[in-house]
Amino acid sequence: MSKGNINVSVENIFPLIKKFLYSDHEIFLRELISNGTDATTKLKHLISIGEAKTELGDAKIEISIDKDAKTLTIKDQGLGMTMEEVEKYINQIAFSGAEEFLEKYKDDKNETGVIGHFGLGFYSAFMVADKVEIFTKSFKDEPAAHWTCDGSPEYTLVEHDKSDRGTEIVLHIAEDSTEFLEEGKISGLLTKYNRFNQVPIKFGTKEETLPLPEDAAEDAKPETITVDNIINNTDPAWTKKPADLEDEDYKNFYRELYPMQFEESLFHIHLNVDYPFNLTGILYFPKLTQNLDMQKDKIQLYQNQVFVTDNVEGIVPDFLQMLKGVIDSPDIPLNVSRSYLQADGAVKKISGYITKKVADKLSSLFKNNREDFEQKWNDIKVIIEYGMLSEEKFFDKAKKFALYPTVDNKFFTFDELVEKTKDAQTDKDGNHIVLYAAHKDAQHSYIEDAKVKGYEVLLLDSPIVSHLMQKLEMESGEAKVQFKRVDADHIDNLIKKDDTVISKLSDEEKEKLKPVIEGAVNNTNYTVQLEAMDSNASPFIITVPEFMRRMKEMSATGGGGMMGMGNMPEMYNLVVNTNHELVSEILNADEDKQKQLVTQAFDLAKLSQNLLHGEELTNFIKRSYELIK
Amino acid sequence: MSKGNINVSVENIFPLIKKFLYSDHEIFLRELISNGTDATTKLKHLISIGEAKTELGDAKIEISIDKDAKTLTIKDQGLGMTMEEVEKYINQIAFSGAEEFLEKYKDDKNETGVIGHFGLGFYSAFMVADKVEIFTKSFKDEPAAHWTCDGSPEYTLVEHDKSDRGTEIVLHIAEDSTEFLEEGKISGLLTKYNRFNQVPIKFGTKEETLPLPEDAAEDAKPETITVDNIINNTDPAWTKKPADLEDEDYKNFYRELYPMQFEESLFHIHLNVDYPFNLTGILYFPKLTQNLDMQKDKIQLYQNQVFVTDNVEGIVPDFLQMLKGVIDSPDIPLNVSRSYLQADGAVKKISGYITKKVADKLSSLFKNNREDFEQKWNDIKVIIEYGMLSEEKFFDKAKKFALYPTVDNKFFTFDELVEKTKDAQTDKDGNHIVLYAAHKDAQHSYIEDAKVKGYEVLLLDSPIVSHLMQKLEMESGEAKVQFKRVDADHIDNLIKKDDTVISKLSDEEKEKLKPVIEGAVNNTNYTVQLEAMDSNASPFIITVPEFMRRMKEMSATGGGGMMGMGNMPEMYNLVVNTNHELVSEILNADEDKQKQLVTQAFDLAKLSQNLLHGEELTNFIKRSYELIK
Repeated sequence: MSKGNINVSVENIFPLIKKFLYSDHEIFLRELISNGTDATTKLKHLISIGEAKTELGDAKIEISIDKDAKTLTIKDQGLGMTMEEVEKYINQIAFSGAEEFLEKYKDDKNETGVIGHFGLGFYSAFMVADKVEIFTKSFKDEPAAHWTCDGSPEYTLVEHDKSDRGTEIVLHIAEDSTEFLEEGKISGLLTKYNRFNQVPIKFGTKEETLPLPEDAAEDAKPETITVDNIINNTDPAWTKKPADLEDEDYKNFYRELYPMQFEESLFHIHLNVDYPFNLTGILYFPKLTQNLDMQKDKIQLYQNQVFVTDNVEGIVPDFLQMLKGVIDSPDIPLNVSRSYLQADGAVKKISGYITKKVADKLSSLFKNNREDFEQKWNDIKVIIEYGMLSEEKFFDKAKKFALYPTVDNKFFTFDELVEKTKDAQTDKDGNHIVLYAAHKDAQHSYIEDAKVKGYEVLLLDSPIVSHLMQKLEMESGEAKVQFKRVDADHIDNLIKKDDTVISKLSDEEKEKLKPVIEGAVNNTNYTVQLEAMDSNASPFIITVPEFMRRMKEMSATGGGGMMGMGNMPEMYNLVVNTNHELVSEILNADEDKQKQLVTQAFDLAKLSQNLLHGEELTNFIKRSYELIK
Repeated sequence: MSKGNINVSVENIFPLIKKFLYSDHEIFLRELISNGTDATTKLKHLISIGEAKTELGDAKIEISIDKDAKTLTIKDQGLGMTMEEVEKYINQIAFSGAEEFLEKYKDDKNETGVIGHFGLGFYSAFMVADKVEIFTKSFKDEPAAHWTCDGSPEYTLVEHDKSDRGTEIVLHIAEDSTEFLEEGKISGLLTKYNRFNQVPIKFGTKEETLPLPEDAAEDAKPETITVDNIINNTDPAWTKKPADLEDEDYKNFYRELYPMQFEESLFHIHLNVDYPFNLTGILYFPKLTQNLDMQKDKIQLYQNQVFVTDNVEGIVPDFLQMLKGVIDSPDIPLNVSRSYLQADGAVKKISGYITKKVADKLSSLFKNNREDFEQKWNDIKVIIEYGMLSEEKFFDKAKKFALYPTVDNKFFTFDELVEKTKDAQTDKDGNHIVLYAAHKDAQHSYIEDAKVKGYEVLLLDSPIVSHLMQKLEMESGEAKVQFKRVDADHIDNLIKKDDTVISKLSDEEKEKLKPVIEGAVNNTNYTVQLEAMDSNASPFIITVPEFMRRMKEMSATGGGGMMGMGNMPEMYNLVVNTNHELVSEILNADEDKQKQLVTQAFDLAKLSQNLLHGEELTNFIKRSYELIK
């Protein structure tokens, strides 16, 4: 039997890194900047506890490009390394310096924000460079070191005369990665990953115009100076205490986070926990917009102010994915698959905490300023309805503030709605009918008919509302609530009362009339239904039965309805008002005139449901011009 | 100065692998199966050149799960390894066995299909396993070896009594990766990556019913036997010569590739080059469908029959991304960023080759069976139009077969169309007007008016066709072709001839009429335009000027039109036919009657353009019932 240590030879470690990283080359810059940030925050800590006798000064990380030399340089003013430390941290790949550091100072409560990647991430430099140099001078009184490795098995390590403290990493960019010598590319990466980095990052310089002194002459010209171009904000809003922030600060941070977004957010939720997990962040409810760019602005996940991803699936509940903002948590494991993440206890707690904070915020907005909440409803309803359908705990809270607007722009909670409409809209069998429309214009004539009766008509137009109706009906229990769209039947049938309207036509006449109308309509998608209604109601009305329509809608938006429902043809009822003058006229006309009257009246009924198109419409228009001439 | 080899210690290689691979854990299985495939094809080669004295037999790769032991096993019947080889290939991580093998046999022309990953990919096993065992017996007459490593720095290597040739890798699956002990998960991965693997892969067994012998008794029951469940097809269609395949074979392969897709493809293109790059594959033009699942079926990229990705951006031209099928090429570099890929010479050639093959295929389909090509046009037009706009070389070929269908279902090429309509549709200024509609139903009455004049009306309804019109107009040069939608103006104005219609109304009467109509219309989005037209034409017509409308459409689909055009309000012309009887009647009526007549006629004109909705529509319908009573 033999035992031994697995030997990873250098000529093979670089292909390994390149092979496994090809889709994500760009993260090398984030890794190197994180190392520089670590080195700086560690030094700061050592100074604070008296272990390092030096001044931190205006320590920053400097990124520079030399196009001629084909190099990209990352320079920090942190701890630096001695020759011995280079040997230990760099030559022994993946020796985690941060872990050793944390271990040593673990009882020191002030120690925070060390990203534990030191050493490990360094080798990602070889994804884009064919030669890497390190110049480094420790804060300790020891000579500086110069390390070089060109991707061959060998490195060289020599003393160097660098005199300023810190580490400078020079990447000699490889032929296939020259994009990383473009200013625009680097600037884009810095913005993506590091715009809230804890240590200032300098990338080039910029001109700044000084304000004129108060006593300047009238014709004095403002002076321009060249200053460092600092690309990051080291103290973003989410790292501060909510008590220290004004409403305006949250608005400013939203603009900072999404500079291309001109709409303001509706409101924000500041997240701030440190037990049982560590999480900070600010979530924003956005204004609904058709703007496609807006949909690209997703919630961003950070770890200690370094951008990780904008895929927060599993961490933020599905129904809140449309929110915007930032979450920062070192407690979310990243080195695992998404399915493991979703099963992880800590992550489940985070998701539950976010849901609860959102529900509480909505509840307080509703209580403190209902009018304002009503104005925002249209923008937030889809998120809330989706949440009510997907999370039972959210449903329980949201049912107290979820709103049901009417076509007249009144807003009811569900309890208020039930109370308000109970008397008028309970039918003779004790069902409490809630009437709604999906579109004010498209169902205009049906809405008018309901309003004439004094009924309230809701305007429910979000895509998943049919699923919510189904749930509310089921939960209503003895209240026997039923949702019906205003065009599901004639209004007298939607809410059946005991009073029956007397038919002007005898049964014989009706028997004569029905085939006449069926013959002229000549379309099996329509079922002719004779009804004795108010003589002022329309003579012909087309209705779409509620059950079938709702099942079709539910099956179209997924997760409900019945299989195959989506492919059923549309079925309509043609309700004929036997008490209308025109219908008597049809009954008594000759055959040609009968056909002519039914056709015109049927076309008008179709227009009400936007069902008259093409040749039928052209013929209808021609006929109608004849009628007015 | 010191020199040395970088030392990657084992306790750190596993975190390194896990860290960089977290989003793609599942590829470990593909890597291990590729090693087994290599080992099998290498042995086959050694046998064929007489260097291995053994029988290949029915060599396959066997995958098995033991849920109780929490292991996943990958077992091949290939070369196997001696103790010495384990030391060399496994303990020296990433020593590329395949490269050494290729080097040794590089002058041997029959050597193909060795995937060069041996060793390198093996360690991906530690992404999902906390302990890995190898049992291996070489084809050489040497003892078998048993290697074990639990992720600590140490491995053990001992002799073993395994007697059958080949390598067996046992993964002890880690706590956070138990999903890889689920049959469904493994079966899914095998289907995703290995369903066309070169060596048969066995995953469990299945029941198979034997056919009854011909002389079986009437009541004989068919016998059922248990056979290996082989999950892959080792000879997929694209690896064969086009000459050896029938049309039916291509159809079968399409069904094999997309089993959930019930529509057949329209036609296929077999790709087959070996110089200056190596590429095989079959592309399919799909039937257009609303089916969302269909859109998930993308072109798949393979390397030596192992699935790599279905993101072929940069390799297949953008306009062909909607095609389906397979591309297999070992010559596409994967270890580079997408932007480098797009600049790579070899990849550019591949993309150019694919474009050319597609154009040639379309051209031959058009020439050989035009009727069939016309029937397929509706499904393929978007792809072709997009190609014509984005690749000039494709435009030059496609202009000979791109079709322009009419509302009467005739199909013209552009040259045919120009020839056919030149005489009738050239206006008095020498502009050749091509009339089109976007929707047969929505523009029905306008189409009818054009047909009465004997004009051809195209039906152009794909989303980017307005960009194509713009291009065709510009390229038409002296032919002065102009596209105009049928509702862009009244037909006599769209193609202006010299003959003028005499107006029944005097100029004075017109001056009196205009404010009457403007007053009744009372809407600044409509410009009233009095025209002397045929007395049989409609009295009122609403038109949408071509230029503004097309610019808005172009700006909506991107890459053209003018900035901000998309937000302009819709502007319409209301064309009033001064020769129509109704218009004279309006002129001579009293004020109330005037208003009533204009309102009804204006509503009818709006109906033609689907512009009458909500309350306006309800009122129109009520008024119209009154008119027929």
